[in-house]
Amino acid sequence: MDFEKILTGKYPAKEHAKRVVDYIRSKIPDANGVLYLESRATKLLEDNDEPEPFRQRRYFYYLSGVPLADCQLIYDITTSKSTLFLPPVDPESVVWSGPPLSPEEALKIYDVDEVKYATELNATLAHLGSTLPSSASTVYAIEGQVSDHVTFLEFDNKNFSVLKEAIEVSRVVKDEYEIALLAKANAVSGAGHRAVMEKVRHASNEQELEAVFLGWCVAHGAKHQSYHSISAAGRAGATLHYIKNDAPLAGKLNLLLDAGAEWGCYAADITRTFPISGKFSPESRAIYDIVLKMQLDCIAALKEGVVWDDVHVLAHKIAIDGLLKLGILKGDKDEIFEARTSVAFMPHGLGHYLGMDTHDTGGNANYNDKDPMFRYLRVRGSLPAGSVITVEPGLYFSEFIIGTYLKDPKHSKYIDTAVLDKYWDVGGIRIEDDVVVTKTGSLDLTHAPKDPDEIERIVSSS
Amino acid sequence: MDFEKILTGKYPAKEHAKRVVDYIRSKIPDANGVLYLESRATKLLEDNDEPEPFRQRRYFYYLSGVPLADCQLIYDITTSKSTLFLPPVDPESVVWSGPPLSPEEALKIYDVDEVKYATELNATLAHLGSTLPSSASTVYAIEGQVSDHVTFLEFDNKNFSVLKEAIEVSRVVKDEYEIALLAKANAVSGAGHRAVMEKVRHASNEQELEAVFLGWCVAHGAKHQSYHSISAAGRAGATLHYIKNDAPLAGKLNLLLDAGAEWGCYAADITRTFPISGKFSPESRAIYDIVLKMQLDCIAALKEGVVWDDVHVLAHKIAIDGLLKLGILKGDKDEIFEARTSVAFMPHGLGHYLGMDTHDTGGNANYNDKDPMFRYLRVRGSLPAGSVITVEPGLYFSEFIIGTYLKDPKHSKYIDTAVLDKYWDVGGIRIEDDVVVTKTGSLDLTHAPKDPDEIERIVSSS
Repeated sequence: MDFEKILTGKYPAKEHAKRVVDYIRSKIPDANGVLYLESRATKLLEDNDEPEPFRQRRYFYYLSGVPLADCQLIYDITTSKSTLFLPPVDPESVVWSGPPLSPEEALKIYDVDEVKYATELNATLAHLGSTLPSSASTVYAIEGQVSDHVTFLEFDNKNFSVLKEAIEVSRVVKDEYEIALLAKANAVSGAGHRAVMEKVRHASNEQELEAVFLGWCVAHGAKHQSYHSISAAGRAGATLHYIKNDAPLAGKLNLLLDAGAEWGCYAADITRTFPISGKFSPESRAIYDIVLKMQLDCIAALKEGVVWDDVHVLAHKIAIDGLLKLGILKGDKDEIFEARTSVAFMPHGLGHYLGMDTHDTGGNANYNDKDPMFRYLRVRGSLPAGSVITVEPGLYFSEFIIGTYLKDPKHSKYIDTAVLDKYWDVGGIRIEDDVVVTKTGSLDLTHAPKDPDEIERIVSSS
Repeated sequence: MDFEKILTGKYPAKEHAKRVVDYIRSKIPDANGVLYLESRATKLLEDNDEPEPFRQRRYFYYLSGVPLADCQLIYDITTSKSTLFLPPVDPESVVWSGPPLSPEEALKIYDVDEVKYATELNATLAHLGSTLPSSASTVYAIEGQVSDHVTFLEFDNKNFSVLKEAIEVSRVVKDEYEIALLAKANAVSGAGHRAVMEKVRHASNEQELEAVFLGWCVAHGAKHQSYHSISAAGRAGATLHYIKNDAPLAGKLNLLLDAGAEWGCYAADITRTFPISGKFSPESRAIYDIVLKMQLDCIAALKEGVVWDDVHVLAHKIAIDGLLKLGILKGDKDEIFEARTSVAFMPHGLGHYLGMDTHDTGGNANYNDKDPMFRYLRVRGSLPAGSVITVEPGLYFSEFIIGTYLKDPKHSKYIDTAVLDKYWDVGGIRIEDDVVVTKTGSLDLTHAPKDPDEIERIVSSS
């Protein structure tokens, strides 16, 4: 796919609307009427006159492709006509902020059929509601996402439940344009990871590396981070949700960088781990090689219909083989697997759907699962072609987590603490790519360096 | 003042509490009982499992110095004892995020007398409420900032109005520690401005310069921006609230950078304008010199008791003199001043209080003032010693704003459009420092380069 070329076109908002209507009709065969959606409203910070950091409401974006605040969208199911409403022009605001996008400009940029000002919203709704035949006079909206001033008086029926579900289900399978956006987010973010690798040997604190990544993304037009980045040196890499990013690098082995930026509301989510000195220690390299094999083999296992639980199991089995070979684990590999002892080293799931949200919609996770190996697995069951999933195996030497397992004789008998003690400084190693599932296999969107020799070359030669 | 040394001590939370109580007692002479405050609660982004960007609640911070989420503070007026409540430890969260700050550690870091877990909050409140004599059994809290689960059952009286006002008034005059925090925020942010000056000649888009500033601040430990930065090249500099920061630099004269970072919840707010080529055009330099004179003379006019309206007028008078000399304005300077024609070139106020908020508490602005010269002046009346104010004169060539004035014969007779036409490409020039008002004068906390010759040297030699 020529991603750059795809992105010269419009975000396919109307195709998304059709897909959403198809889902609604699969639940309500004679569904008709209009879909109504609002974008995120401008909101000030508490006790302050600065606006909150803006994040577009994903449901609205999916059906409009419009990144602006304070807009509304009506999609008429019968005619397939979409109408975008822009906030009315505030003359005071023009003085300070310049003229806003006009309806004519908006019509050119976005995949909508008509653009009006929000002053016409209620009249338009009333007209639609009153002209539709009673059987088709339904407005579909999302609970809690309809402003108080919006009236649906002329509609006979209101359905505030199915639209949200329809969008969430539709979002799981990405179209070409969405994949191109994810690829672009990955291209910028992947280059950002490389920029950090080039800087790490010359930095003295985690915060400098957080800054390199952030600066890279903003300089290249990716102004929103997908999530709070993790820039964890040494043992901090074993803290899965480390967010401080402010510790010195001196005396530490590896940097774990989990960071991604958005492009057009679509997220990249990438993790790389690399030696701060430019050369992996023997223990770090041994763990790195296991994690890389986990990742490559899991990616190779992907194709339409594969059961994600099975891929997650594959990762654990490779981890057990590798940790047995190093002597960190001891005993029978099947028994270790059944005991779930490997969860002490990889407590999280193998990955999650990725799209407009970092943890995207869909997946059927079961956080109450009694089996610790699957409790945090965010996707369960088979993967459809067109879904995009992160493949992010990791092995962690967390004193807190492994310490808990060591207190339990069911697990401690499989762990050789004398060998383990040589690995604490490895911290945590995770390698995470964003992968499209296809009919015949998969397409890896992430091109940040992950070959350990290449990484060593990049770090040490900069 | 030795700012670095001051910052090795604790944030003076208890002194702030005493100051707040003094204010309350100036309104309610026999005030007694307890002050109750909550920090910002952890909140997720809408439709997402990522937390919202965290910003500490300023009222809580002022009386605690604690930057953490989900805490509470009780200050007992009678005994001057403060008690901080930390969120209870969640074992699941420890697995993912590591152990949180313990009460013992918190007691060492923060200026509080006791630290407990929030599980003891209601019991502590009940005990205090029931042991206080009826005349002193009042809890002072802030409307809308008390969680539902918090009960004040044992208190005879609740006052949800005076505490907020007391803190807002108290915050206007800063103590040494607060000034040291503002100085540190300024040191980091000022160096960030210099870093952008060093980069501008080699950049091709505004976003690269936004990135340099942001990266500089994060790399130096200032992880929060005070406000959305403005990185405006060429004519965009005339859009006062320009936020896109994404236009090419080619062919443009000046970059206006309005950017500041926080340090320990205290904000820097700095603007510099510099030539992208390294050399001001004659028109740019002429305007720069006027704005610099406006700023230097206004700073020189500051001392305890000065009326800010008068300083704002001084800026306009210098602007009129300068624009008359260049021939952009024509006619009698007093008549021009009375006509308010200079507002076309400097539509905003001269500055605002600065502290934990960029537009800090206090000031008595009157946004309904019919006089256009004062409508946007955020501070009115006399400045107390210890207040910190931005001094940010600017001159702007906004086609939209000046265009409106040119349509009005009351103003157009004073504007020479033939001369004016040579200045549109100057865009906007603003110079903004953060200044402490003292008994005898002022202390400028901002050390980013502003001498035009020095700026040219920095830009052109990098």
